[in-house]
Parts: sequence; C-alpha cells; structure tokens
Amino acid sequence: MRKEVRSPMGIVVTDISTSLDGYITGPHDRPDQPLGEDGTVLHEWIFKDPATFPRLMADLRASTGAILMGRRSYELAGGWGDEPPFHLPIFVVTHRTHDRVEKRGGTTFTFVTDGIESALRQARAVAGDRNIAVHGGSATRQLLRAGLLDELRLNVVPVLLAAGNRLFEEGELRRVDLELISANPTPDVTHLHYRILR
Amino acid sequence: MRKEVRSPMGIVVTDISTSLDGYITGPHDRPDQPLGEDGTVLHEWIFKDPATFPRLMADLRASTGAILMGRRSYELAGGWGDEPPFHLPIFVVTHRTHDRVEKRGGTTFTFVTDGIESALRQARAVAGDRNIAVHGGSATRQLLRAGLLDELRLNVVPVLLAAGNRLFEEGELRRVDLELISANPTPDVTHLHYRILR
Repeated sequence: MRKEVRSPMGIVVTDISTSLDGYITGPHDRPDQPLGEDGTVLHEWIFKDPATFPRLMADLRASTGAILMGRRSYELAGGWGDEPPFHLPIFVVTHRTHDRVEKRGGTTFTFVTDGIESALRQARAVAGDRNIAVHGGSATRQLLRAGLLDELRLNVVPVLLAAGNRLFEEGELRRVDLELISANPTPDVTHLHYRILR
Repeated sequence: MRKEVRSPMGIVVTDISTSLDGYITGPHDRPDQPLGEDGTVLHEWIFKDPATFPRLMADLRASTGAILMGRRSYELAGGWGDEPPFHLPIFVVTHRTHDRVEKRGGTTFTFVTDGIESALRQARAVAGDRNIAVHGGSATRQLLRAGLLDELRLNVVPVLLAAGNRLFEEGELRRVDLELISANPTPDVTHLHYRILR
C-alpha cells in the first residue's frame, strides 16, 4: 500500500465490511450485539480462518499510525476490553467530554469534542507519515463530506441484510467520484478498494 | 451463461447498474431524465465504447425469452420509441389496466394487473427454457420477496450518488443469502454476479 501514498503524509482510509445492500450492521445494534441482529455474518470472513484476524491486525499496525472513530463505534465495542488488538492511539469524535483512556498494549482513546477536522489533525500529529484508519459509518461520512477521506476499502459480504445501519445514509452527502484501485473477489467476501477523487 | 441453468427452465435475472452506494437512479427521475439528476453516470460504461450496447443487446436476445418490469420502469423509458432495442415480449406489472402495445421489431408490452407471480408465469410461458430478464428496482424487490429471483448481476459504477432511488429500499425485504458466481472489475464498472440462495 505504501507505494500509493502520494505525499509524506499518510492517507485516510475507511476499511469496512458491508452487506451487498450497504448495511454495516444489522438492526438493533447495542453493546451486547455491536453488529446488530444478523450482523455477525458481516465479520465471518475475518474469523473463518484463524490466521486472518492476526494478519489484518499486523497489516493495520504496519501501515497505520492512528485510528479515528465516532462515539457510537467506541461505545458499541465496549472499549475492546483491557487490551484492545490495535496497539494504536485512537481518536474518538464526540459531543461529550470524556477523560483519556489508556489500555494495556499501547491503545489509547482520546476524546475530541471540537469536530472531525480537529480529530484528524490530532491523529496526523501522532501518525506522522503513516495512515489514519477510520472506523464506522459516522466518521466515514463526516470525512467524506469534508473532502478528507482518501480511500474507501469495502469488504462486500454476499448477503442482503435488508435492515440495520447503512454506511451511506441518505441525504448526508453529495456526489463523490471514485477510482477503483483493486478488486479481490473470494467466495466469502469481495474486497473493493477505491480512491476518492477530488 | 447457459451452462449455469440448472433446469429446463430459464433463470430469472436482474442485471442492473448501480452506484457504489446503491442508487439505480439519481434524484428526480422522470421521463425526460429517466435516470434522474446525475444518474446518466450509471450508464456511461454502456455507451463509452460503441460496441458495448449492441453486444449487451445481442447477449440479451441470445439468452433471454422475455422481460419483466414494473410500471414505473415502463413509463420512465417512454416505451423506448417505435422500435425498442429488445425485440422481446415484455410483461409490465401494474395496478392499472392498459391495452397491449406492439412495437416494430417484435417488442410487445403486456400489462399484468394480478401480481408479480402471474406476470412471471406469463413470461415463462413465452420464454420457454430461456431466461427472464428483470428491469428496475420494484420488480426486482417483488421477486426477491417472493423467492422467485435466481440471479442478481450488479454493474457497480465507481461513484457515490448520495440521493435517488435505491435498488434495495429499506424495510421491503428480509435477509437473503447470496453466492458470488463471478466478479469482473474494470476501470469504468465492476460486474458482480450473484446466485440467490434459498
């Protein structure tokens, strides 16, 4: 991926699993079922082969210097336990102040109350020339709207969920043109990587 | 495609262009702009190379015995002029009766007022062992809901339209599992073919 970086700055990337009909969770997502009803089908490709999740986490740590997410993503995941798998600084965009949280293994949560652009600036300051990984629909849409997202990597699972939370909620964006960087179809998931054109 | 037919009956197939965020038209679709504002971007891949549209029509006529669509698809397209490119019998599912329409070149429009299953039966009667091609979101969703769609072929254009008509409107379906048959990525469009599992 590093050869695609066009500047000394890392790129801002959303890498997310979605149903073919655009849902990133099933309905009724809450901390005890963060992906909602039926939503675990979206992550089966990550856990089917025990080597996949460790490989994804290793790839993330090799390429990425910080993570950006919305408050809901943080709350749904319950803070990922005592030692989250990321080992990275995480910036949580929220309206409510919250003390910084330090977990074992180097994962920290910093709560940013003055908007997505401030959160991205803070993430860039610690990430240096490494990428910023964006989690969840809300942070992705805010960055797209602000023209600050560089890549969209969709892991499209062959299911229609028909209900839940969509990555692209109606009415939040304007037209955005993309360029396909790569496509990797497998029986369990099709990886489609796009560059955002501006 | 014929090798995928598992029975003497043809399969029921929706082959449709969509934005990456799931829109099959932009906003404000009407007869003078049937794809809505910004929606023509969804069909640019068909007309960029002058050989593509004739090839698609030849493939359609070689594999397909009838077309099924909703009333809105018929009205938006204005009946496709005096000699529509399909040269096939078309069955239009509608609540309002309408006299049968015969166009030059063998395209006929038969208006069916007693539901999608009746329209499919009538289409099968004329199609024999050839496929039924489904046009538009409404007919596709009705067939999916009735468990009568066999394949979904999405032509995914690298754009977020952010508004318009979605192929998968919220709340009309339940979960449907799919199987990826083939994926063909190109710079202009990524073709994803799925079998509907039942």
